[in-house]
This record gives sequence, structure tokens and C-alpha cells, in this order.
Amino acid sequence: MNSPDFGRITPEIIESLGDIVGLDQVILDRFDLEPYSHDETEDLEFFPDAAIRPSSAAEISEIMKICHQNNIPVTTRGGGTGLSGGALPVYGGIVLSTERMNRIIEIDKENLMATVQPGLITHNLHQAVEAEGLFYPVDPASKESCTIGGNIAECAGGPRALKYGVTKDYVYGLTCVLADGRIFKTGGKLLKNVSGYNLTQLIVGSEGTLCIVAEIIVKLIPLPRYKRTLLAPFDSLEKAARGLTQIFMNRIVPSAAEFIERAAIKAAEDKFEKKFPHSDAAALLLFEIDGDREDVLDEQAEKIGEICLAHDAADVFVADNPEKQAEMWQMRRNIGEAVKSIAIYKEEDTVVPRAHLPELVEKITAISKKYGILTISYGHAGDGNIHCNIIKKDISDDDWNNKLPQVINELFREVVILGGSISGEHGIGWVQKDYLPIALSDVELGLMRSIKKVFDPKGILNPGKMLPS
Amino acid sequence: MNSPDFGRITPEIIESLGDIVGLDQVILDRFDLEPYSHDETEDLEFFPDAAIRPSSAAEISEIMKICHQNNIPVTTRGGGTGLSGGALPVYGGIVLSTERMNRIIEIDKENLMATVQPGLITHNLHQAVEAEGLFYPVDPASKESCTIGGNIAECAGGPRALKYGVTKDYVYGLTCVLADGRIFKTGGKLLKNVSGYNLTQLIVGSEGTLCIVAEIIVKLIPLPRYKRTLLAPFDSLEKAARGLTQIFMNRIVPSAAEFIERAAIKAAEDKFEKKFPHSDAAALLLFEIDGDREDVLDEQAEKIGEICLAHDAADVFVADNPEKQAEMWQMRRNIGEAVKSIAIYKEEDTVVPRAHLPELVEKITAISKKYGILTISYGHAGDGNIHCNIIKKDISDDDWNNKLPQVINELFREVVILGGSISGEHGIGWVQKDYLPIALSDVELGLMRSIKKVFDPKGILNPGKMLPS
Repeated sequence: MNSPDFGRITPEIIESLGDIVGLDQVILDRFDLEPYSHDETEDLEFFPDAAIRPSSAAEISEIMKICHQNNIPVTTRGGGTGLSGGALPVYGGIVLSTERMNRIIEIDKENLMATVQPGLITHNLHQAVEAEGLFYPVDPASKESCTIGGNIAECAGGPRALKYGVTKDYVYGLTCVLADGRIFKTGGKLLKNVSGYNLTQLIVGSEGTLCIVAEIIVKLIPLPRYKRTLLAPFDSLEKAARGLTQIFMNRIVPSAAEFIERAAIKAAEDKFEKKFPHSDAAALLLFEIDGDREDVLDEQAEKIGEICLAHDAADVFVADNPEKQAEMWQMRRNIGEAVKSIAIYKEEDTVVPRAHLPELVEKITAISKKYGILTISYGHAGDGNIHCNIIKKDISDDDWNNKLPQVINELFREVVILGGSISGEHGIGWVQKDYLPIALSDVELGLMRSIKKVFDPKGILNPGKMLPS
Repeated sequence: MNSPDFGRITPEIIESLGDIVGLDQVILDRFDLEPYSHDETEDLEFFPDAAIRPSSAAEISEIMKICHQNNIPVTTRGGGTGLSGGALPVYGGIVLSTERMNRIIEIDKENLMATVQPGLITHNLHQAVEAEGLFYPVDPASKESCTIGGNIAECAGGPRALKYGVTKDYVYGLTCVLADGRIFKTGGKLLKNVSGYNLTQLIVGSEGTLCIVAEIIVKLIPLPRYKRTLLAPFDSLEKAARGLTQIFMNRIVPSAAEFIERAAIKAAEDKFEKKFPHSDAAALLLFEIDGDREDVLDEQAEKIGEICLAHDAADVFVADNPEKQAEMWQMRRNIGEAVKSIAIYKEEDTVVPRAHLPELVEKITAISKKYGILTISYGHAGDGNIHCNIIKKDISDDDWNNKLPQVINELFREVVILGGSISGEHGIGWVQKDYLPIALSDVELGLMRSIKKVFDPKGILNPGKMLPS
């Protein structure tokens, strides 16, 4: 699917790129290019013409000068764990992998800031700062293989977003390379900064379409000392949601409040041949609370338990040691894999105002029935962010191909009616871009297209992504 | 200082504007225009040709269509408390005042979000949500007269930014009007949202140069139940700053950590003819901590006290009741007025990484000596945000006019060397824009100019502000 507008990669260009990074860091062989041809988005595959692995902002700048001059598309790639096809080189060209730029440059304990390279694995940042008693709370499900650069591209979230916020809330400074190779910096180790427009926040979540992020300053906070994990099975989702609201009204902000519907638990039981407690409940809520005083946590856990029981929870399990906590979280983390192993699937990353979550799940059930397509939902109840998996089970290829876009369209329209949006943390990328006009008006889309042109007039950075054609 | 490029306001235009808002909401009389001719920035005065007071987004849209067609400059005005001249109509034209759009539309307790109009006084939002046990933490010094719309324009901060963040951290959705009158919405009551570029965060801090904000969704959090206020006098700023760092290292994040240098305390003593405790100390630190458990606060207060004493604080005063706390804060709040009443002044809103604060104050002292100009500093130590007042005391007009730009230039250059920026929370506006190239490169400024053109191609929204000519 090469666009006629883009340039071809010639042997001369390859040679020039090799001069910048060394020829061993320019990958051309089809076998070696395979890992760069897909991410974690369904079964999509697009081969780049080449992959390149720079080691510095200066090298990225030189690469971009050549690509800009020759009109070569460049798709930046972090860990390749994306779920919206953001790292797919859909028009071929070059995949620019940040895998070698994976260092922590500095952990500044006095200013509570870390400076890192974009290819750093998120979990490695967690471990390094936690060893210093510090905390980088953003914890996407793929934290052991995703990168900070990729997290910035998608504005990644995760369970702890509920209390601690998402990637944008921690990014305070960036070093970036424009499509034409010019390098610029935004922000700094500054908690307050109003010197010009906030380019940092414009770039976070821009999915590699505006510039290439080459260095990052993130804020750190003190690491909370203690945790409690709680699991409560409810006989209806409405009651679970009302209970959750009551928890907030009682001044408790859990660090996570996850939601798993019955079908998702069943899927995990089948997949892992293991029985979960209360797996016949309509919905499970999994809470985490954290803090520096165990007595305060125990008090909060008791209050959460009371509220859940008052909302007809069948029981409340509290895990107060790391092993039991890890077990409960493992169960939650297994859900995704289990649900996706049932059959071909399409995952939607719907988000609504938290209190509308029961209505969203009701709508999903209704749409599922109307079209005779299986859906299984789970996700972050505290943020109203529900991952709805549409499963190709017991229906024909024709039916699937015919009904799937209708199901998605109807789902997204209901989400928007509820005051929500079509992606909470996975991004728009390649697979959702044609649905974006459901969420955004022509005015917003027009502004976004014009902003894209400001940063990348030739449209060579991650072409085909986010903005509908 | 009318620019030849802008259109003139004709009687026909006035009539059309009157048709939109009613003629009583279009102000033309010079006496009545006086309040719209200045803000709190030094002694600057620029009269608009007219002021207009719309009551809705639809009215703003109609106003902008006329102004756009006729190329009339429009400067949006909130409470007029700005310190960088952001609300000054420097090219005349129209001041669009949000004073009638001052309502709280909704406090959504289930989703912990409030929907408000831009002309709402910040303090009124505080009171309304606190009555519900909720909290909107952003507390600029002018909170009793500034507006939420103005806070968004400047990305206002305040003492509590240290623990709770600044305006950008609470704005989740906007309804905006473009220069040509088109209305658009961004975001929503969504804690996670990655559907397209983050226009919300681009608009926060854009000083009314990109669009007019007509409605705002802000996040609320549970109101902390208890507070403690502490005051510690230090014999050197270095020791005070090292003590502050230790407090963070002990996992305590105060809700505020304010810094007042000796000269500022003396100024307040002179002005209010009142003796403050330990007013001979080189620097005072004023802390606030808050939370839901008094025993935890007492423990933290004790730890802060220990750390301060270990860093040679002469004493530590703890205020545990609202009256004593209010008294300590009143002293802090009086500083600004006292310092500014000494003589003509120019206030700089410098910000550096927190740990560099002692170096910044050292540099300020050195520059002050070098040029023989009095400077007095105070501000938010926890954020590294220091308000440095340059005072015209005992020097001639010529000397002042000659030296002031040199002093500011040198100060800002030192700030940037320390990894800081030229404004933390006051904005760039009219009075700082020519210094912006000290903090930003041509690449960043070029991107900002192009973004401005995307939103406002004719340059009629708050012309002459933020971006250097």
C-alpha cells in the first residue's frame, strides 16, 4: 500500500543512513524486518522497507534530514505493544526503532525528576526509581515490554491512573526532532511553567505524528509504603458502580478500581483451567489502596468493605501481603489473554464519565444481542475506561465482516451520547481513525489537521495514523 | 497604538454588537471603559474602543463573526488581576469581558467534576465545592477576584500547586469559540481520553491568543479534613532549601512551602507597623500540610520540625487551628502588597528546578549589587517559583529606565542556565514577550507562531501578546 506521493528508498539513501548509525543498525532483510512489521494490534502486518536503530537525538536528526529531503515515511516504534496500530508502517518506508535509546540518564532525587531515553522499558523505570524510594505510577498492562516513548505517544494509562493520573500528568520536559530534522526542547524540571504554549502536552498522545521524542523528563513522587488489595463480587454491575461512587464520596481515592464482567472471568477459568472465587458473580471489582500508614489503610479497607457489603457484595476479600496481592492482580492481568484467546477479536477502548459505566455496559449488552455477536468487557471502572472485546465466535466470516463495523459504529455512538470518547488509553492509530469523526467535530478535526501540517508539512511522520483521511 | 492592519469600529458594528447582547452590554463611554483599560500589571493603561459583556457561547460566537469579518482585535478579560498584561487591549478594539458568565453550571458529585462558566470567581468555586466536601485546589493569590477563565488563560498556580498541581492539572474539558466564531469542544468528564491531539492542554496557558473559552469542566477531589501550618526561620537560604529537600526525601509532600526573604518581611513590618516573629532571619519558610487524619498530620509536622531544626532553623512554630493558620497566611499574603508599596516596581515570576532555588537567590543578590538596584524576593519555594521584585528606590528615572531591561535580561539568562524559565504562573502577556527568546529557541517560537495562525489566521485574538514581534 505504497502511496505514490512518498519517495522510494534507494541504495544511496541506505548508504547515507548507514553513515549515520552504522550499517549494522540499518535492517533490510525481510526476515529481520518481521518483528518491525506488527505490533499487538490484532493480526495486522505491514512490512517497512527498512528499520533503523539510532542511538541519539543527533542521529535521529540526521536520519530525518535525509528522509525529509527524499519524502520517505518514518514510523517511530517503541516496544511494539500498541493496540491501535500506531507503530505499523502502513505506507512502508522506515521504522525508526528506539530500542537502543533505553537508558535512564538521571534520577534527580532533589528535584524528584528523572531524565530518560524514549526506548526505556517502563518497568525498568519503575524498578530503578522504587529502589530509591520514589515512584513513577503509570502502569500500562504491557509495562514489562512497553517503553516510555511509546507511553508518551499514546498517553498510556493503566489501573493506577485513577489515583495518580496518566502519562501526560508526569511528562514535564521533552527533547524532540521535527520531520525536517530540527531539534527542539520543551519544558524542563519545572512544576510550574507558562512560557509560551504548552507544546509538551500537545506532543503527549500525538502518536508519533508530530515529531520524534528523543529525551524525556518525568516527574517522580514518593513511593507509598503499603498497599491493600480488595476483591468484591457483586450480583449486578449497577450496584457495583453505586458502591464505587460511595467510596469516593467517603473521601477514599483507591489507587485502582478494576471491573471484570462474568464472561471475562469464565474465559479466564476456561483458559487457565482454574476456578476463581465467586466466578458466578455478575461483576467483580478489584480495588487497590496505598499509603504510608498501615492503620490508615486498614481503616480505608474496612470502609470499602462496609460500602461494598451495603451494596450487596457477596463477600469482600482483602489481601494485605504482597503474595496474595500479586495473585489477585495476576488474575486480572490474565483476563486479557484469556478473552483474546477465545477467537478472532476486536478490542475497543471505550471511556465514559465514571458514573455512566453501568449504562455503557447495558448498551454493550444490548448491541451484542441485537447483532448476535459475543462481547466481553473488563477494564478500569474508576476511570470509566472499559475494554470491550468483540469476539468472532460462532458466526461466519461474512457475518463478521459485515456486522463488525456496524457494531463498532453503534457502540461508539452510544459512548459519545454518554459523554464519553472512543479511546481512553490505546490511541486512535490505524484501526480507529475512521471512527474519530464520531467523537470529534469537523472543527476539531480541522484544527488537528492544521497542527499536523505545522509540525510535519510533508506528512512523513507516521502517515495514515490518527486523523481520518 | 492602533495598528494599521486592524479595522475600525463603526457605528454599524456597534449596532450589530448591540443586537447580539443588548446595547446596555456594549460599553463605549470613556469613563465606563476605564476599568477595562488596565489589569494588575504595574501602571499600564490601554483603553479599548469598546467593551462587551456577552452571556453565552452563542453570543460570543456571533460577536466573533462580526469582529472577524471587520478585522477588529478582541481581548478577553476575566477578573483583570493578571500580572503580565494579558488582559490589556494594547491595539484597542474590543475587550470581551466574561463578567456576566459567572455561574457554576453543575457540581457532579458522582464523577467529581464541575462545569462552570469562565467568569466564575475562583474563590466562589472553592466555597461551593467545599460545601459539598469537595476540593478545587488551585489557589492563586488573587483568588477572591480572579476568574476560572483567567486562570485557564495563564495556567494559574498558587501555593498549593506543590502538592496538587496547577490549573492545567484540573481542566478536563472546554467549550471554545474560534476567532471566526466557530464553536468547538474539547475533552469531557473523562479521566482518560486519547482521541486526537490534546487541544485542551494546548489552550490552557495560551493567554486568550488561540480562542475564547466559554465553558469549562474541572476535576474535583475530596476535600482534606485537616491542616497544619508551620513557620520556620532560617539563618541562611541554603540551609532552608536543603531542609526542604529533606522533607520530600522523607516522603512528605507539603501542600505548600513558601519562601520569604528578610527584606520582604521587613517591608511588611514597615508597611503594617507590626513586628513579625524572627523577622531578622535570612529567610522564612512557611509550610502547610493537609490530610484526613490528625495523627498523621501531627506526625508529619513533628518530622518537618525535626528536619528544620537539624538544618539550623531558629525555631518552628506550628499552627493547628484555623485562626492561627489564617494569621500566618495573612502575613504571607501581605508581603506582595508591602513590597509593591515601597516604590515603582517590576515583578519577575522566575522559576527554576526546586533544588536550584538557593543559587537563583544568590544570582538575584549578585545582579542587584552589580546594578545597584534593590530587589526583594518571595514565593513558592516548593516549586522553585520565586517572585523577584525589582524596586525603583533611591535611583533616578534615567538609571531605572536604562538599567531595568539589563537587570531583567541578566536575571532571565541566569534562570535559563539553571534549567528554569521566565514565567512560572504569571504568563508572558505584554510585558515579558520580548524576553521570551531567552527561554525558547527559534524552533519553538516558530512552532508557536504557526499554531497561533492555525487558530487565529487574522491575528485578532489578544494581539500583541505572548509571542515576540
